[in-house]
Amino acid sequence: MSVTPLHLVAGILHTDQYQLAMAQVYFRQGLHQRPARFDWFFRSYPDYGEHQAGYAITAGLEWLLEWMEVTTFSPDDIEVLRVQRTSGGDPRFDDDFLSWLSGKGFDELTVHAVPEGRVVHAHVPIVTVEGPLAMAQILETALLNRLNYQTLIATKASRVKEAARQGTVLDFGTRRGPDLGAAAGSRAALIGGADHSSNVEVSHLLGFDPKGTHAHSLVQVFMALGAGELEAFRAFAARYPDECVLLVDTVDTLESGIPNAITVFRELEAEGHRPAGVRLDSGDLAYLAIRSAELLDDAGFPEVSIVLSSDLDELAIWQILSQIDVEAPRYGVDPRALAARLTYGVGTRLITSAGHSALNGVYKLVAVADDAGDWVPAIKVSENVVKVPTPGEKEVWRVYDERGLATADVIGLGGEDLAGTDDLPILHPHRAGVRRTIPRERISAIESLLEPVFANGSRTGDVASIGEMRARRDADLNRLDTGVRRIVNPHIYHVSLTERMKGLQCLLVDNARDSVLGND
Amino acid sequence: MSVTPLHLVAGILHTDQYQLAMAQVYFRQGLHQRPARFDWFFRSYPDYGEHQAGYAITAGLEWLLEWMEVTTFSPDDIEVLRVQRTSGGDPRFDDDFLSWLSGKGFDELTVHAVPEGRVVHAHVPIVTVEGPLAMAQILETALLNRLNYQTLIATKASRVKEAARQGTVLDFGTRRGPDLGAAAGSRAALIGGADHSSNVEVSHLLGFDPKGTHAHSLVQVFMALGAGELEAFRAFAARYPDECVLLVDTVDTLESGIPNAITVFRELEAEGHRPAGVRLDSGDLAYLAIRSAELLDDAGFPEVSIVLSSDLDELAIWQILSQIDVEAPRYGVDPRALAARLTYGVGTRLITSAGHSALNGVYKLVAVADDAGDWVPAIKVSENVVKVPTPGEKEVWRVYDERGLATADVIGLGGEDLAGTDDLPILHPHRAGVRRTIPRERISAIESLLEPVFANGSRTGDVASIGEMRARRDADLNRLDTGVRRIVNPHIYHVSLTERMKGLQCLLVDNARDSVLGND
Repeated sequence: MSVTPLHLVAGILHTDQYQLAMAQVYFRQGLHQRPARFDWFFRSYPDYGEHQAGYAITAGLEWLLEWMEVTTFSPDDIEVLRVQRTSGGDPRFDDDFLSWLSGKGFDELTVHAVPEGRVVHAHVPIVTVEGPLAMAQILETALLNRLNYQTLIATKASRVKEAARQGTVLDFGTRRGPDLGAAAGSRAALIGGADHSSNVEVSHLLGFDPKGTHAHSLVQVFMALGAGELEAFRAFAARYPDECVLLVDTVDTLESGIPNAITVFRELEAEGHRPAGVRLDSGDLAYLAIRSAELLDDAGFPEVSIVLSSDLDELAIWQILSQIDVEAPRYGVDPRALAARLTYGVGTRLITSAGHSALNGVYKLVAVADDAGDWVPAIKVSENVVKVPTPGEKEVWRVYDERGLATADVIGLGGEDLAGTDDLPILHPHRAGVRRTIPRERISAIESLLEPVFANGSRTGDVASIGEMRARRDADLNRLDTGVRRIVNPHIYHVSLTERMKGLQCLLVDNARDSVLGND
Repeated sequence: MSVTPLHLVAGILHTDQYQLAMAQVYFRQGLHQRPARFDWFFRSYPDYGEHQAGYAITAGLEWLLEWMEVTTFSPDDIEVLRVQRTSGGDPRFDDDFLSWLSGKGFDELTVHAVPEGRVVHAHVPIVTVEGPLAMAQILETALLNRLNYQTLIATKASRVKEAARQGTVLDFGTRRGPDLGAAAGSRAALIGGADHSSNVEVSHLLGFDPKGTHAHSLVQVFMALGAGELEAFRAFAARYPDECVLLVDTVDTLESGIPNAITVFRELEAEGHRPAGVRLDSGDLAYLAIRSAELLDDAGFPEVSIVLSSDLDELAIWQILSQIDVEAPRYGVDPRALAARLTYGVGTRLITSAGHSALNGVYKLVAVADDAGDWVPAIKVSENVVKVPTPGEKEVWRVYDERGLATADVIGLGGEDLAGTDDLPILHPHRAGVRRTIPRERISAIESLLEPVFANGSRTGDVASIGEMRARRDADLNRLDTGVRRIVNPHIYHVSLTERMKGLQCLLVDNARDSVLGND
């Protein structure tokens, strides 16, 4: 395709005004090229109300980095800024600043990150950005806009996949998704837990076969024209004999839809084709799935899949499978065989992360270089101690216990090395005095999480496929305590600081308060 | 600008696979050019949990129509479809179908709509599409993707504006918004209730001045480099002396931020400038606003505005203003004067419609032409009676009572005319036997709601500005019962059918069940 993919078309002005306002202040103060470091992390796991996430799946990075490779302040962008006027009628941006900004992109920034698809945790830096202050600041909105949303949706998709007991999940979200953002949502769903998407463009771009059956309207057209559901099914089957999935609830699922589908499946079979499935889109889906399975089994179609859709999410799927476990035997249907033939079309509640519609990911300044070029940690002394980010350059490790399961993510100072560590004392990031020591003999591995991903204007290393991201996800989920994976009331995974990091954090908070408030 | 605005760059393949699969079935059956009619409506108002909407603000139409004007199946799009293979390895789309599809756009469709910015209600057709079946079907995903999201956000914005007692509302949502969808979200916010947006591109495109102050990072940079909050404020004020809004909570709002801001404001004033404001972004915003107002008043800055931000939505703003009403007098601050100087920066919870993250808007086939060219109503006989759409061609009116307030939206048959009606009997759309008669003398006006907006590949009539859409919104809100506008437990607005429409609906449901289920 010669078409520019959707995720690359946003200009650099798809940003917040204050990024540019601040960049100009830095320019006027001679600070615009000052080396700075920002961390992206999220403050808490999505809490959907009745159920909560105990982990997240990071997503969105490759599309962000690809955008960073091609994006600069174009002459058009500069012109948009040049015409801005203050309330007093003066130009808001100075010519010398705009000259400096013109043609500028992100090629002076260096990015490290936890790769897409991996399990990630609250408070842990997932992406770190180093480079000249002004452009590192300007990157903020685009980075948050892209990483927060995809990570949110990948996390939801992973939960849906867990609830589906690893059954096939289809993303049907585009129609209820957030305008053009739905494309990113579909990608994130594919990373986090969806096997396929209905979105044609995203599927093509990522190398997937887009999935879809037909709508009620197909049946309605035939009915309105004096034919009926059966004729509509025949028309669909005639063109798609080898992937014929029929939507059976336009009139009445059990009285009309399934019997008509069985008629068409027999006709397909007689012509040497293998019928693919039925889709249920309304009513008591567990009950209808059981009864449909019963009818399909009796008709000699025990392998035809049953696609469920209609406001599904992890809780709805969990409920459906629980109900099937209990009720299917009453109808002579084996619950495990039924579960194995189910496919889940998940739309609205996946692509909007219903119940928790935004990840609280933030991009915080954590260090800036002094005149000598040495890093100085930066801190925000907020009223809310949970909002205090860990300062300075840092390293992030995942510690695996003697069972090979992840037991804690640990944040330390840049240059710290846990490899040769003896027993590992780790401290709660916000609660004073809460500490724990992991004995050396209980540690099976310590893994550094941040990898270099962008430098000199380009992505470093190979670009992972969605398949590779899914492999990372599955490997991480398999090394996660099942309590943390639970979709309701998950265990809290430990995120901790090294003693040296905790010491720096305490010192800086105290110093900041003292120096500014005059309490020294 | 020569740049293509973001909302125009999505290709026609930003859609669901099944639209194309169905279009090919229609093509194979010779039904692709058959005239059809689809309605877009939503089934229920957003319910945010603790609070609920009693009305919605329609938004997204102009961007959809502008996209429809320029969008066709390009050679690249056709190529994407040509390479699709079924599981059996055969081409999924036939050459003759793809030849027919190539270059095709939406120029044969006619669209009527309730104009953007207007108050709209559940079950009432807001957009109707007429034209050849295949392309009217293919439009579905794009239409839903764009109208559902913007209407959702415009509705939320209107509620925020109501809670803010018509105070200034700023959209700060892009960073937590859904990837590129944030652009549409900002536009919808501007239509529904936000006065300005922080999004630079959208603001420019729509003719607004983008708003923004500075981030904590500005203060942190100065602190890390051995200066402090005061120097950071001075640097900002130096470049923006006439629009200087200072973020005062990086260290401590009342002990550091406000005193430093006052120092800088005095310096600005001495140089002949008028200080603009402070922004509070954490803590107990009502308390801090009161105390900040007290300090600013004492310092001689009673007109400096106080911008509040930090997870605001309609409920948070309502709470803040209620708390100010009660507590401000204790500090010698006039609550009304304080409320008048407040500005609300609303981000995450606006652009994601927190609590209710998707509008359940649907696009349903309601009529198709028979061989003689006469409209035949189409219906879906669902298990859930609320999901049965009103069939056929239709007219939609808003009836105003003797006070000039909207009392009901009425859905009738195409060709019906309520103008000369005597007493007006109206019936509940789903509950059998629930009816009401509006006496003629209580009716002050009957307004037809649907206007022609698109024909022959172009928008008809003038394109409204955001200002005109806001004027429609305000006019409609002023004619809405205050009970319906209430942000918690709103009154239910009446949406009803004429007797003739109700009759058609009953007849069709009965016929459909009888003919298909063989109960006649």
